[in-house]
Amino acid sequence: MHLFYTPDIAPAHPQYFLSEEESKHAIRVLRLEAGDEVQLIDGRGGFYNAVIHDAHPKRTILNITSVTPEFNKRNHYLHIAVAPTKNIERLEWFLEKATEIGIDEISLIITQRSERKEAKVDRLNKIITAAIKQSLKAYHPILNDAVKFNQLLALPFDGQKFIAHCEPGDRLDLRKVIDPQGRYLILIGPEGDFSPAEIELALESGFKPITLGEARLRTETAALEACFEVNFLNRL
Amino acid sequence: MHLFYTPDIAPAHPQYFLSEEESKHAIRVLRLEAGDEVQLIDGRGGFYNAVIHDAHPKRTILNITSVTPEFNKRNHYLHIAVAPTKNIERLEWFLEKATEIGIDEISLIITQRSERKEAKVDRLNKIITAAIKQSLKAYHPILNDAVKFNQLLALPFDGQKFIAHCEPGDRLDLRKVIDPQGRYLILIGPEGDFSPAEIELALESGFKPITLGEARLRTETAALEACFEVNFLNRL
Repeated sequence: MHLFYTPDIAPAHPQYFLSEEESKHAIRVLRLEAGDEVQLIDGRGGFYNAVIHDAHPKRTILNITSVTPEFNKRNHYLHIAVAPTKNIERLEWFLEKATEIGIDEISLIITQRSERKEAKVDRLNKIITAAIKQSLKAYHPILNDAVKFNQLLALPFDGQKFIAHCEPGDRLDLRKVIDPQGRYLILIGPEGDFSPAEIELALESGFKPITLGEARLRTETAALEACFEVNFLNRL
Repeated sequence: MHLFYTPDIAPAHPQYFLSEEESKHAIRVLRLEAGDEVQLIDGRGGFYNAVIHDAHPKRTILNITSVTPEFNKRNHYLHIAVAPTKNIERLEWFLEKATEIGIDEISLIITQRSERKEAKVDRLNKIITAAIKQSLKAYHPILNDAVKFNQLLALPFDGQKFIAHCEPGDRLDLRKVIDPQGRYLILIGPEGDFSPAEIELALESGFKPITLGEARLRTETAALEACFEVNFLNRL
């Protein structure tokens, strides 16, 4: 299968022109020819079958032969807000793995104990795009620009809101409190966890405290654990 | 906390001498002094509290003050046999993450479609050791040398045996077939999955076929998903 990510295509289009870069890749690298089949995903759930009409190395023309909307649509909505790791590669692999396992939206939050105060979203988005192509996903997870913890708490979210932390106190088990096939926003702290003040503020903002088990997990592992649990608990 | 991995210590020992390398790290790098507290793990479940008796930079002497055997003993035994990934870094992060989440034994299997036919266990073991120190585990997962797929099938294993694959046919859901707090051996295939012949051979050898969900996962992600599921299903 030869899959291309083409966010500017729409289901109504009978034809599509690959970008110069994609054309070069298709014709020069993959050595595709007129009549060969390729697939396109638009990142919004659309999965397209197409045939190469003109194998032009700079402006390949495709005829769309079929469209599947809402391809492998997920049965829930998962938004994870995580503090970027000091070592950016750890955040990068979380994004790749979460995309494979299943996630809809990621926010990067700058917290009191964050060692990293910023993250380049463009580069991170390229990793997500590579992951959806590799794992054959028609929905492109949304990656939001980094915001301060307080700003994120203030954003409206229609669904269940959780904060995962390691401080003492009652923490709920997702297995017991999650609404099946719902919408979830989960906060994951930095190395060193959220500060007690941040946790207090989150609880006041309607977030419920959860545990991800007794194991001591790195930030990116905790974020992936949350992603895994939500997907597993929603698996039919 | 200053944690050292000291596999040669035993609960009966009243004192312990750090290796030259560990001594240098403790005294020159961490700048620890006589009277300072440190912790030791022996990799077999023993967690030790100790106090520096002689802060010698090449031969630091520790007095053991207390020992906790079976520290955070897991309630099940998980052995994952996985085909080493072409890109060794992907296997390395699986080992780090599985150690954080919880695993007891890892075998590396060379399969029909394996692009990588070998893997240096020494280097991989260093990654596991770093992970147990980071995640405060007193048990050091066992990493076995790479063996051929057929050889692994022939090894005796007292517990449930599963093979995760993506070929057509009935595949079971771990949630429905796993015996709680049991012993499990799970096979994870290479990029390109196990061959139908390998799957057949595994079934004949008493392995039950399982699915890890509908998502298309990379080898290392599938192995971690299996690790997640087993730990999650055994979480009390």
